[in-house]
Amino acid sequence: MMRIALDAMGGDHAPQVTVEGAVWAAREYDVEVALVGQEEALEAELKKHETSGLELSIVHASEVLGMKDEPAIAAKTKRDSSMIVAMDLVKAGEADAFFSAGNSGGVMAVALFRLGRVPGIKRPALTAHYPSPEGYSVLLDVGANTDCKPDWLLQFGMMGSVYAETALGITTPRVGIVSNGEEEGKGSTLVKEAYALFKESQLNFVGNVEGKDIPAGLADVVVTDGLTGNVIIKLSEGLTRFLIRAIEKEIKSGTVTAIGGALAMPAFRRAKKTLDYSEIGGVPLLGVNGVVLVGHGRSNSKAIKNGLGGARRAAAGGMLAAITDRLAGMDL
Amino acid sequence: MMRIALDAMGGDHAPQVTVEGAVWAAREYDVEVALVGQEEALEAELKKHETSGLELSIVHASEVLGMKDEPAIAAKTKRDSSMIVAMDLVKAGEADAFFSAGNSGGVMAVALFRLGRVPGIKRPALTAHYPSPEGYSVLLDVGANTDCKPDWLLQFGMMGSVYAETALGITTPRVGIVSNGEEEGKGSTLVKEAYALFKESQLNFVGNVEGKDIPAGLADVVVTDGLTGNVIIKLSEGLTRFLIRAIEKEIKSGTVTAIGGALAMPAFRRAKKTLDYSEIGGVPLLGVNGVVLVGHGRSNSKAIKNGLGGARRAAAGGMLAAITDRLAGMDL
Repeated sequence: MMRIALDAMGGDHAPQVTVEGAVWAAREYDVEVALVGQEEALEAELKKHETSGLELSIVHASEVLGMKDEPAIAAKTKRDSSMIVAMDLVKAGEADAFFSAGNSGGVMAVALFRLGRVPGIKRPALTAHYPSPEGYSVLLDVGANTDCKPDWLLQFGMMGSVYAETALGITTPRVGIVSNGEEEGKGSTLVKEAYALFKESQLNFVGNVEGKDIPAGLADVVVTDGLTGNVIIKLSEGLTRFLIRAIEKEIKSGTVTAIGGALAMPAFRRAKKTLDYSEIGGVPLLGVNGVVLVGHGRSNSKAIKNGLGGARRAAAGGMLAAITDRLAGMDL
Repeated sequence: MMRIALDAMGGDHAPQVTVEGAVWAAREYDVEVALVGQEEALEAELKKHETSGLELSIVHASEVLGMKDEPAIAAKTKRDSSMIVAMDLVKAGEADAFFSAGNSGGVMAVALFRLGRVPGIKRPALTAHYPSPEGYSVLLDVGANTDCKPDWLLQFGMMGSVYAETALGITTPRVGIVSNGEEEGKGSTLVKEAYALFKESQLNFVGNVEGKDIPAGLADVVVTDGLTGNVIIKLSEGLTRFLIRAIEKEIKSGTVTAIGGALAMPAFRRAKKTLDYSEIGGVPLLGVNGVVLVGHGRSNSKAIKNGLGGARRAAAGGMLAAITDRLAGMDL
């Protein structure tokens, strides 16, 4: 049975929702959750739930690495924080994966500091799930590396492919590079140099993808630098909110459409859900030497449950071993 | 009265919609339109309209620079194309502005080749209008320069501000740089170096803007490199289409919501219109030595009319002189 180390103090609504989510995950999946954090607080939360027969344990950690902590500093000083203690369970082989909805910069710093990189990987990449007509694409990097080199992008493409295969069950995922035109030769110097590397690689490379191709799902793994990737996810969030509001405003402005609008509301809500982070729960930090997933700070218990499920799938699918294997076969 | 040189052969539906749009513009605005293109074809189209009292003239050009022409080559060889002949009217001072819905790479090449840059401007930038709750923001560059330098971005910020002031009537426009975080120090090397320049400039600089801040309208002038800018507009188009389809699909899947959906449809259509290029018509190529606007290849007559209106406003507002003046006051 897979054992997941949960940073039970991480996230805006911890430890209430983290404990709730852990109980839910232990009931729904074949998984053991190690709740890492302040023992008394966690015990008090656990008592609110019926947990008999569930594989839940508490690992005490006296400190919390909070949203306002400077990641690089806290990763070295808050040694008894729930985030570091949970990461060390993975490092010691006492847990198969790590999940936190806390300070994501902190998770990145702690993962690099405690686990290090997979040998041969140049930079870890933060990943996002992007909704497409058939499910989700894997988008990376979304913020860990703002200035990239072509061979880093190639490694992102490889790691994204492995994640798509092992955790999302996509076979021979199509890999694309984000550019301002589909044709070879379009794009920045970085994109053009990366294109040449991808073409020579064993990835299922489908060429450049434009902005419009991302929601259309033309690639399963969408590779870009951390600045562009971050803009893509945050713009998508912002634009969705803008459009839903524009539609709601239109509906409120007329009487006939108001009736229609009220009746159509469940449809809006379901469409909105497509982009809802709580359905995804957690996204991986790829390239660190362990299975590490990060959730949204605003995670509710369902997001925590889904994040733990994602961590379990990535660990059970052998993601880390596959990245190491694949790397051995690459000319980098 | 402003005189606009229209590439009447440019666009997927030329010359029918270009002539229709020109007649419409001459009727709606205080403007003269010089229709540049194959005389016989244009005369035949003009005859379909009531044009008495309107300021419309035909300037013959025997060739067409089409969508499949290689811009850099055609700009030097198709000397009697409608695009080049129209551009030369601006160069000769016989027209105050240029508008084309044809090959946009061609317009860029022809503008650079025939008009050149405004003295002191390092690179021209292609601009887009981005819908915001209060109207539109100016986004640039959206594809002319994929690899940028910090001082180019500063010039884009200045030119975008001038365009926002003179053509869109926005006073002291707020200028932001696209980044992966709002704080100073977030972003790529390019963004960080540009931030320092913007901070020292006389622009109304509001700092970095994240992806979500763009549709929220947190800046009136949104500055970025041509790759990221291009991804922003094409992603917005693609995501809007994706969301509208998701909502339509949801509505079709249930009976109660189907009734609601049918009644709410006018609201959808109006929301969709917010992102409709035909409302905008044309966007400027800033930094070339003339007022040059580019429209969508799929432009209908309304888009042509609005594009001509935009060209008229930019010329009447003294955009070019303002760019030159503002440049003189900058430390570049």
